[in-house]
Amino acid sequence: MILILRLNHRIPRDERMSTHCALVSRAFGADGMHYSGMKDTGLENSVNEITERFGGDFFIKHTEKDREFVRSRKKKGFFVVHLTMYGTDFMEEVSGLKKKRKLLIIVGGEKVEPEFYELADLNLSVGNQPHSEVGALSVFLHEISGLKKKFKDAKIEVRPCKKGKDIVRL
Amino acid sequence: MILILRLNHRIPRDERMSTHCALVSRAFGADGMHYSGMKDTGLENSVNEITERFGGDFFIKHTEKDREFVRSRKKKGFFVVHLTMYGTDFMEEVSGLKKKRKLLIIVGGEKVEPEFYELADLNLSVGNQPHSEVGALSVFLHEISGLKKKFKDAKIEVRPCKKGKDIVRL
Repeated sequence: MILILRLNHRIPRDERMSTHCALVSRAFGADGMHYSGMKDTGLENSVNEITERFGGDFFIKHTEKDREFVRSRKKKGFFVVHLTMYGTDFMEEVSGLKKKRKLLIIVGGEKVEPEFYELADLNLSVGNQPHSEVGALSVFLHEISGLKKKFKDAKIEVRPCKKGKDIVRL
Repeated sequence: MILILRLNHRIPRDERMSTHCALVSRAFGADGMHYSGMKDTGLENSVNEITERFGGDFFIKHTEKDREFVRSRKKKGFFVVHLTMYGTDFMEEVSGLKKKRKLLIIVGGEKVEPEFYELADLNLSVGNQPHSEVGALSVFLHEISGLKKKFKDAKIEVRPCKKGKDIVRL
């Protein structure tokens, strides 16, 4: 099981970044994304509409208390990875992480409270240059879980195509 | 040489997505990003400030005529890849693409004119699920070029750290 925790969501500033975090999580096989900060039904609707059309049972949920959320998941046996440009090279941990049955991945925004660096079992970077939480999460999940192949109950499916678009309604 | 072309930038909607496209491109060793749509000095300044502090000679440039830009780069020997959720699996092309000396990667937004599918030498997908142009670009560049190690004339450097932050002023 792979869960994502997106920290400190702000409306309107983070609307698209958080949507992309969720969609990347879904595409690479995570089970769901929790997010803290401002509750955003627009964000939730955007993600749920994609799941409704393209299938699978990815969920998105707001959490009021992100630190308590992390602590409770640790008690339930989740291994916690915090993705940060300040961390150590994620590639060194990939083979170990692939074996974890329960993974919680914390994705920050511009400011992350110091407590999360302590709560995490590992603080890992996808490079130590400033770039993108969406980019880091994508590369990390691509290595750990890879692209998810099947999404059950999909109403729509895109088939690989050399030119143009091949969209199938199921 | 790796160039990125980001299509149809809109202010304010795409400000952060395009910034993240540029920063991901820089972190994974692309030489620069051209973008069409609205000229955005705020976007350019954000990216240039990062390069100023963290080093390297990544550039960002606005282009008025994106189709002509692609045609002119093709004449100069660039191999053109268009990243799209409708394309064929990018992993099948990785080994061939790594050998290209000049690569232009087109990254769309929500709408991409059909002409780009024709202009591209390859239309490639990072999965056929809707997710994120930033995510797709990151995973693609991670496979093709990998993280860039050295950024010359950096004023600031982040050193990998198990907990907290290790920022060095050079």
